[in-house]
Amino acid sequence: MKRLNIIILLIAVFSFTVFGQRKIVNIPDLPGYVTLKCDFHLHTVFSDGNVWPTVRVGEAYRDGLDAISITDHIEYTPKKDYIPVDHNASWKVAETTARDYNIILVKGTEITRSMPPGHLNALFITDANALVKDSVYNVIEEAVKQGAFIQWNHPGWKSQQPDGIPRMYDIHYRLLKNKWLHGIEFFNHRDYYPLVMTFCKQHNLAVIANSDMHGVISEEYQGKTNRPMTLVFAKERTHESLKEAMFAGRTLGYFDDMIAGKVEYALPFFHQCISVGKPFNQTDKSVYFEILNKSDIPFYLVDGLPGTPATITLNANSATRVVVSKTVTTPLAYNIKNIITGENEVLKVEIKY
Amino acid sequence: MKRLNIIILLIAVFSFTVFGQRKIVNIPDLPGYVTLKCDFHLHTVFSDGNVWPTVRVGEAYRDGLDAISITDHIEYTPKKDYIPVDHNASWKVAETTARDYNIILVKGTEITRSMPPGHLNALFITDANALVKDSVYNVIEEAVKQGAFIQWNHPGWKSQQPDGIPRMYDIHYRLLKNKWLHGIEFFNHRDYYPLVMTFCKQHNLAVIANSDMHGVISEEYQGKTNRPMTLVFAKERTHESLKEAMFAGRTLGYFDDMIAGKVEYALPFFHQCISVGKPFNQTDKSVYFEILNKSDIPFYLVDGLPGTPATITLNANSATRVVVSKTVTTPLAYNIKNIITGENEVLKVEIKY
Amino acid sequence: MKRLNIIILLIAVFSFTVFGQRKIVNIPDLPGYVTLKCDFHLHTVFSDGNVWPTVRVGEAYRDGLDAISITDHIEYTPKKDYIPVDHNASWKVAETTARDYNIILVKGTEITRSMPPGHLNALFITDANALVKDSVYNVIEEAVKQGAFIQWNHPGWKSQQPDGIPRMYDIHYRLLKNKWLHGIEFFNHRDYYPLVMTFCKQHNLAVIANSDMHGVISEEYQGKTNRPMTLVFAKERTHESLKEAMFAGRTLGYFDDMIAGKVEYALPFFHQCISVGKPFNQTDKSVYFEILNKSDIPFYLVDGLPGTPATITLNANSATRVVVSKTVTTPLAYNIKNIITGENEVLKVEIKY
Amino acid sequence: MKRLNIIILLIAVFSFTVFGQRKIVNIPDLPGYVTLKCDFHLHTVFSDGNVWPTVRVGEAYRDGLDAISITDHIEYTPKKDYIPVDHNASWKVAETTARDYNIILVKGTEITRSMPPGHLNALFITDANALVKDSVYNVIEEAVKQGAFIQWNHPGWKSQQPDGIPRMYDIHYRLLKNKWLHGIEFFNHRDYYPLVMTFCKQHNLAVIANSDMHGVISEEYQGKTNRPMTLVFAKERTHESLKEAMFAGRTLGYFDDMIAGKVEYALPFFHQCISVGKPFNQTDKSVYFEILNKSDIPFYLVDGLPGTPATITLNANSATRVVVSKTVTTPLAYNIKNIITGENEVLKVEIKY
Repeated sequence: MKRLNIIILLIAVFSFTVFGQRKIVNIPDLPGYVTLKCDFHLHTVFSDGNVWPTVRVGEAYRDGLDAISITDHIEYTPKKDYIPVDHNASWKVAETTARDYNIILVKGTEITRSMPPGHLNALFITDANALVKDSVYNVIEEAVKQGAFIQWNHPGWKSQQPDGIPRMYDIHYRLLKNKWLHGIEFFNHRDYYPLVMTFCKQHNLAVIANSDMHGVISEEYQGKTNRPMTLVFAKERTHESLKEAMFAGRTLGYFDDMIAGKVEYALPFFHQCISVGKPFNQTDKSVYFEILNKSDIPFYLVDGLPGTPATITLNANSATRVVVSKTVTTPLAYNIKNIITGENEVLKVEIKY
Repeated sequence: MKRLNIIILLIAVFSFTVFGQRKIVNIPDLPGYVTLKCDFHLHTVFSDGNVWPTVRVGEAYRDGLDAISITDHIEYTPKKDYIPVDHNASWKVAETTARDYNIILVKGTEITRSMPPGHLNALFITDANALVKDSVYNVIEEAVKQGAFIQWNHPGWKSQQPDGIPRMYDIHYRLLKNKWLHGIEFFNHRDYYPLVMTFCKQHNLAVIANSDMHGVISEEYQGKTNRPMTLVFAKERTHESLKEAMFAGRTLGYFDDMIAGKVEYALPFFHQCISVGKPFNQTDKSVYFEILNKSDIPFYLVDGLPGTPATITLNANSATRVVVSKTVTTPLAYNIKNIITGENEVLKVEIKY
Repeated sequence: MKRLNIIILLIAVFSFTVFGQRKIVNIPDLPGYVTLKCDFHLHTVFSDGNVWPTVRVGEAYRDGLDAISITDHIEYTPKKDYIPVDHNASWKVAETTARDYNIILVKGTEITRSMPPGHLNALFITDANALVKDSVYNVIEEAVKQGAFIQWNHPGWKSQQPDGIPRMYDIHYRLLKNKWLHGIEFFNHRDYYPLVMTFCKQHNLAVIANSDMHGVISEEYQGKTNRPMTLVFAKERTHESLKEAMFAGRTLGYFDDMIAGKVEYALPFFHQCISVGKPFNQTDKSVYFEILNKSDIPFYLVDGLPGTPATITLNANSATRVVVSKTVTTPLAYNIKNIITGENEVLKVEIKY
Repeated sequence: MKRLNIIILLIAVFSFTVFGQRKIVNIPDLPGYVTLKCDFHLHTVFSDGNVWPTVRVGEAYRDGLDAISITDHIEYTPKKDYIPVDHNASWKVAETTARDYNIILVKGTEITRSMPPGHLNALFITDANALVKDSVYNVIEEAVKQGAFIQWNHPGWKSQQPDGIPRMYDIHYRLLKNKWLHGIEFFNHRDYYPLVMTFCKQHNLAVIANSDMHGVISEEYQGKTNRPMTLVFAKERTHESLKEAMFAGRTLGYFDDMIAGKVEYALPFFHQCISVGKPFNQTDKSVYFEILNKSDIPFYLVDGLPGTPATITLNANSATRVVVSKTVTTPLAYNIKNIITGENEVLKVEIKY
């Protein structure tokens, strides 16, 4: 029917995908690595999310992300009366758009079980439909066979742990023993779990931050600086390098002006964010200088030594003026309240001027 | 399988629909009528939109709307490889949520043809699947049989009218003659068509403003005061009263700080928005007083008579101080630049003080 | 010199005072009273402030205030090397502008002593220069003779009370006995003092909220809904009615989404802010209805009875949907967390639906 | 009197100057030069401004400026009934604060005459009181003797040139001949004068952008990206280097997302702002790549050659994706609509990929 062809052409023009402006997230690279901004936990209408898969690519593009994974639930597909189940569908739908917008699209899915083991994302898989099996152990085995990075999601989620505290069960130890567990979410959606730092350090796992978004990112994080994201320190901005860096555990979690991760990445990361200016206006009594923070993350320095400022706030994309008495001989040494390096630990830094 | 039941329960709690805060749109009623804020042109994944139908209800709830219609295309279903075609599906999916959130959900669809007659929405229908027919004339006949209000969409859409100017063709006149055409979009998405005012006044049709949203409302209208909406002056806030008011043509279009419609509604509407305060600080020379505008719409008054301010801007939710010389005997008479009452006409008002 | 006249004329045109848009503060009147929004504590370059007095009028106009008092320090004039001391100057400079912008300008000054008695504002005076005396007792006596309303400022200010807790000293009791103390600041700048509620209820004093601004209002309260303001329930919007209401103690303090004051004003105030909509969508199990909050103040309802929502947030200028089980027979009874009516007391309300 | 000393001490603590957060203005340096952000036209209560001089330093600090000049009028001192005239006072008051906050404070004043010659700022002077003379010629002679940079202010100001068009009069040519005129304001407050580009190129003068602020900066430029500022390309961030660069004319004007100045500075400036990413997703048909704009200034590229995008918008701090057909052999050549290099000229650029 010729008429219909014309209609389709016209509408195609009308609904042509334009994603608008891509924000630059001001976060530094580490020496030798490029910092990839990633969200490895997203849902669409193909499970219990409310948007079409290409929407996730558009959000990632605008938000300045480098990589995402759409991880619809294997075991939970409440829209199946309207949308026939195909666990690979969301990846297939999003793939071309991701390539056109230079977003690395990691194929993934969410293994959705009661606790233990709770919910686990399998990332870097090749066929999600092969993960439909009764035994969760067999599902993970299959995922690992496909090359999966296994990530434990929201381990202290109150619907599965009413006290909000993550716990390792037998099955988790078994996964660890098999090297079938590679990372844990420290940040999920708007929550975070301090104990995850202990697990990750003990078992050498990657610290992860994801949105677990079901609705629309821009509506969910209004008033926040950023959506949750995992910072991955990769050798290059490629799918392969990303995967290598994830298995190597070179990550930090970032959300709501907080950074969480291991000292070996958090410390150089902080020092890449700031620079200290030359002293000015040297009087007999005081030294004045500025600390520049060119990142999008504010830093809250506390517990200053006697004679130095008790606290210093280094606002994002700002210069902060510091006045130190000339009689002070102690260095500028601080705890950074919003860089979490352990269950009850924050990053310690020294600043030279 | 007992385990799965538990999983589903837990997730159900997790994904429980919460739509957040409902904004009050500060727009007055007219004497004898309540002003319903409506959007009669919305798409979902069931045609070429990118969101699940309940998202449209949530947006309407938060944006302070009273009524919406989801109008997926009959003839254009590009997601059909993943989502089997059912033209009543988006209404069925959204219905319960709409009732729970007290949003009037008008059953509708978009008849999607090349020009002429272009795209037409059939509103207040009962079965969209019955509108799958070859001849557009037969489709409209069926819609009207179901009780439809027929709305002509974006009549100057550049994909169908490259010069952007709406034109009436034979088929439109035939529809008019049958009383099968009841309203035309003046505002669609981010565009508007001045000539629509002429058509509506000549043929006594309702002036309509809709978003025609395919993506996410909150992303599309960032930086705008409001999404496009049709203001309908209904006897009550019910589905029946809404329908009666639409067929009676008691509407104004509202978008981007502009109002468009017939003088008989625009004039009392303006006077309901403002009030004039008592004069203060009467000197020998001048009278000072304030005009309050308690609506969300700013008004731009231009072409003041000699001796009165040449222009007055009545900002939204603001008081504006006016100083008039005591020697002035002319009234405060203005054209309101952003209340459009004809192709080349704006509303004329007199303000007493 | 003719040339200079022309210059002055031209510049006069250039620097003609235009204060821009006057915001409407959405706060209801009480039955029988009009609610005046007031700030009774402001500084200028005539003591240790940084702006010219007319700036205070412009800020008040834009912020939607009805009345202000400029209260420069009597005993502290650090700019005196550049600006000769005249304690009536700031009032004289601001007077014409206040009249032109319909702002009630209350003549006032700040008596600035160490604790006790600390800092006191004398409001509604006639000559600030007459308040230069050694004994603070004599100063207050003179102020009262001029008809002053005496307001105790920031009684827990840490520079005068290092623990931040207000204390009544002998001189305060003496003032009370003479009826020479009429109000106390509950809110000052960004601080507040819960104990002030006890003092005000015990001695029947007005509860006051002021900015104590030295710099620029718009810079100081960025990110806050509003500057601090005293809500005064006056018979009319006049200088005389304002004074009568202040001495009668008909006030509430308002800042940072908090209201503080006596139950007799706080309770009707809350009920004027909200209205309860008709129930909709009555199912067998639940009643659904909306609570409208048309004020600029959000209300945080806590401690709901069993079977009713534990907490309800009534956002500013928003509608909030409430779902109550039909089996519930208890009323909707809540404590409102952000309406403070005593040192450790908040307002209790019942809501009928 | 011992008591008063304590009072003063306490208040001093209270009113201690804290200017808050210093924003980083993201504007690149030029090779060999550091870009200083400057405002050379500001008023205070010492002429017809409304703020104390230290306020100007605080604004400059927060706004990320490097240098300012307070330029109160010599011939217009409307507050003299309250503030005795001393043309050096604003500099004296601001000096210590400027040093403490590392703001370069250029001593200046505004010579305020009717047209011709209109208003002229004398910058880098040593004694403003010596500029009180009848003949404007003698005033400028004295200023130049002190080492002044003479800047012609708002040459098309409608109070002095009702048609808004700048004109050179005999006295201006005489100043040029003496080398007594060194720069002209292209941007003043919210206005700009295209013809200034012609004057500056013809006579080799510096292109200047200033706020001419009388009120409060943060209130005046709400909704604008930045206050007006002159970008000066100096060898170092010092008073001496700034002066050298100004006399050498190494400047650009910047306001409201517009840049104005000579091609020799505008062209390298643009190329320092952007970088072009590596192509990705090379299909048979198209090349895809991103252009990064890490500056705070958006760039509007228009008049693209056939086969390349007609327009490209490089938003501030954003990446923009560009798709070019592989059949295209023309370079990416554009006019940049918001970089003004002549009365009717904008910057032409080529972008390599």
